[in-house]
Amino acid sequence: MGSRDRKQSGSGASGRFAYEGLDRAIHEKARLGILTSLAAHRDGLPFNHLKELCALTDGNLNRHLAVLEEAGLIEMTRSTGKGRPKTTVALTNSGRQRFGQYISVLEQVVKDAARSRRKAEAGAAKLSAGWSPA
Amino acid sequence: MGSRDRKQSGSGASGRFAYEGLDRAIHEKARLGILTSLAAHRDGLPFNHLKELCALTDGNLNRHLAVLEEAGLIEMTRSTGKGRPKTTVALTNSGRQRFGQYISVLEQVVKDAARSRRKAEAGAAKLSAGWSPA
Repeated sequence: MGSRDRKQSGSGASGRFAYEGLDRAIHEKARLGILTSLAAHRDGLPFNHLKELCALTDGNLNRHLAVLEEAGLIEMTRSTGKGRPKTTVALTNSGRQRFGQYISVLEQVVKDAARSRRKAEAGAAKLSAGWSPA
Repeated sequence: MGSRDRKQSGSGASGRFAYEGLDRAIHEKARLGILTSLAAHRDGLPFNHLKELCALTDGNLNRHLAVLEEAGLIEMTRSTGKGRPKTTVALTNSGRQRFGQYISVLEQVVKDAARSRRKAEAGAAKLSAGWSPA
């Protein structure tokens, strides 16, 4: 029996909204934008293009890329041809897979929120129709 | 002309993946679970029920509730009847509205990620069909 089973014993609702699949390396707002940008580009994106897409400064983008590289989600390639060296950033295979799993959890959050909203609205409608709890 | 317009000048793609609507008070993983739980309950939830739904310790839940209260997203009511005092946590009206706006941005992230995936897969299919760039 895994730790997940133990944690959920006692009540079916326990941990229902814990969202353990929301990997913190991915979930941070700026990194979420970076990964969504990269997911469309199998061959990667130049640093400057990514910076513009995500409206980040050089310093901030560098800091977030370091976290993503450390987590094994992206890889960076530095090419030195004519002119200035160019950095290209791309998802790793594992990064692509983990980002897909993360997005599945995010879809679940959106579904849960929609269900919560319907439930709250149904309750409010009952009240405004004159129904009141005993 | 607002700062948003200035930031987006120069290129239509600029800031496309900045996701400025992802309010950090809401976006943090545990707080996202707390707010999704509360969104279903107009009359609020008891502290202990919330703790169980989100699989948080007393200390962690208290810490996150303080952030949410400070941000004006939730309100807490302490009732002192028979036995131990009971804390009930509920979304404020403004909290309910802001959570709805946040969820709209989350939906956009999920859509963007799906579009990115389709784009990357179309590229990979071209390559495996023998097409190669000049």
